Amino acid sequence: METIKIITRDDMADVALGGAFLGTGGGGDPYIGRLMAEQAIDANGSVQVLNVDDLADDALVVPVAMMGAPTVMLEKLPRGDEAINALRSLEAVLGKKADAIFCIEAGGLNSTIPIAVAATARLPIVDGDGMGRAFPELQMVSMTMFDIHACPMAMADEKGNAIALNTVDNLSTEKFARVITVEMGGAGLIALYPMTGAQAKQAILRGSLSLIANIGRIIGSEQAANRNPADKLAADLKGMRLFEGRVTDVDRRTEGGFARGRATIEGLESYQGQKMFLNFQNEFLLAEDEHGRPRAITPDLICLLDLETGQPITTETMGYGFRVIVFGLPCDPKWRTKHGLELVGPSYFGYEAQYKPIEILNLQN
Amino acid sequence: METIKIITRDDMADVALGGAFLGTGGGGDPYIGRLMAEQAIDANGSVQVLNVDDLADDALVVPVAMMGAPTVMLEKLPRGDEAINALRSLEAVLGKKADAIFCIEAGGLNSTIPIAVAATARLPIVDGDGMGRAFPELQMVSMTMFDIHACPMAMADEKGNAIALNTVDNLSTEKFARVITVEMGGAGLIALYPMTGAQAKQAILRGSLSLIANIGRIIGSEQAANRNPADKLAADLKGMRLFEGRVTDVDRRTEGGFARGRATIEGLESYQGQKMFLNFQNEFLLAEDEHGRPRAITPDLICLLDLETGQPITTETMGYGFRVIVFGLPCDPKWRTKHGLELVGPSYFGYEAQYKPIEILNLQN
Repeated sequence: METIKIITRDDMADVALGGAFLGTGGGGDPYIGRLMAEQAIDANGSVQVLNVDDLADDALVVPVAMMGAPTVMLEKLPRGDEAINALRSLEAVLGKKADAIFCIEAGGLNSTIPIAVAATARLPIVDGDGMGRAFPELQMVSMTMFDIHACPMAMADEKGNAIALNTVDNLSTEKFARVITVEMGGAGLIALYPMTGAQAKQAILRGSLSLIANIGRIIGSEQAANRNPADKLAADLKGMRLFEGRVTDVDRRTEGGFARGRATIEGLESYQGQKMFLNFQNEFLLAEDEHGRPRAITPDLICLLDLETGQPITTETMGYGFRVIVFGLPCDPKWRTKHGLELVGPSYFGYEAQYKPIEILNLQN
Repeated sequence: METIKIITRDDMADVALGGAFLGTGGGGDPYIGRLMAEQAIDANGSVQVLNVDDLADDALVVPVAMMGAPTVMLEKLPRGDEAINALRSLEAVLGKKADAIFCIEAGGLNSTIPIAVAATARLPIVDGDGMGRAFPELQMVSMTMFDIHACPMAMADEKGNAIALNTVDNLSTEKFARVITVEMGGAGLIALYPMTGAQAKQAILRGSLSLIANIGRIIGSEQAANRNPADKLAADLKGMRLFEGRVTDVDRRTEGGFARGRATIEGLESYQGQKMFLNFQNEFLLAEDEHGRPRAITPDLICLLDLETGQPITTETMGYGFRVIVFGLPCDPKWRTKHGLELVGPSYFGYEAQYKPIEILNLQN
């Protein structure tokens, strides 16, 4: 007897929670995405989860995602069919139907919207993603390291506008798609990086959806037991609690379609008297102590959790007075290569820090 | 025996000059476009000019144009195949080959580039255009008044990037294409408003290419006879000399992909002691006297000519000390309708003046 993995309506709470955790402050509030996925599953049934190795080599795999400022999605009242429109537009350009859906990144919205699309299109979803976390720009995916092109790419908004891109490289895709997203009112739905099963086997990060569901389950069950999930997450994920404190300042500005800024956290309990600074561009990218020493550097993961409940907090909702845990996780080894660090290391974002693995930075602690 | 109209290499000087004149300060310096057309004609032969009524009702007519800041075209060193790439991209989207090329507007670049494309693609060009002059925005064409959609639209740049748009209306097409143009470095080549021969017969302004060639011939022959062509143009085109003077100030800024500003001209000869102010957004849109009284208002044409040679001057090259003639022409009657004035009248551009025909404004003069 064969076993298959499926995502049911009841799994969506865990997926939304785990996605928000790995979203490292970005990737959006899962509310809308979870709702969309639950409705799509109600209407069309559960979604089958495929291991990447179960894909036929010539299968067409298509990542679907939200691009832009996630808060905008809450204000724009999506029609619900933009994501499907993006998929259908891309299929029209390719002259071919997708065989499986894929998550470009982990995140509250971008781990849930693809499930909604998969349910609506009655397609399986691949157990993997392109980042193992969230990053702010389109070219920041493992596929770029394996010369898979982001284009043809399709974009759709809630008004019915559809745009297809065919650019010379993935960085150009990002630049054009970004200004189009801004013109769409700050957010759009996208389908891109169409790839074969053979390419997916080589390029993607494996098991992400299972990991996300597992993280969601841990957070949920620890919350139910009135325990902060940080300790269990640290043990299970080889992560570490970096800091605990209260947010005393958030300097946040919207520039070129991104939420950029820096948050100050003043220590509580055993961290009394210390500070931590979190620099972000949609996602948390660099954590420094009060002496300017890095404690976690992109591409390693910096997750912000509510001190009482362990609920993940996004860079957009974080505000003065929030009591938080800063939690760190090593990134996927692919990101620690030369090519990986060129794509998503600190210098790309303009930070002076030299990348060092989070395990090394925190040996003394 | 049947007669056919053709554009030969030798006609290109007239077309470039006449296009620049009707470009009303915009539509670009014809230099690059004339060169491209001459080379394409050398390589592929002359271009047949079709009267719109000679088109089959089901023929596919495709306007091709440069979008953005024309000076950028001089700096970007075009590869020469961007315009053909835009046409081919649009044909790919439509799944159909164009039967004829068309000029979206009159202008130094946009009356010549389509001829280069027609020669290269070995297609005829239609004797007409969508404006009878130049305007700064994509939706400002007679086709919009006849519910012809700008999309599908294709854009291409000199790097090889190609983008296809399918927007909900022509104003949205303009907004998306404008930010994409800026991201392309300020200018891109476009193919849009695909229409049938039947639609073209209803919607386009007729005879523009013949008119442009005729204007070019007048300017050229008057220049050869050492006469300023303004008087002959006024007589032949029902136009009028509005002012003569020296440019004493140009306030020019680049905003949102447009060259916006205002020029001050102080009177010479019989205009001594008077002033004229020219407001522009790529094109000259409003001419006022020193008392703030309008002397010519968009959509009527305001053309700037060199006082000695009669050479058309663009808003981008105009500068301090230029000695100029301001020349006015009534626009096509289609623009004086309610719908026409909504699209291109003074209020759209933020000017307070109420539109009055140039013939009425200058009755007293």
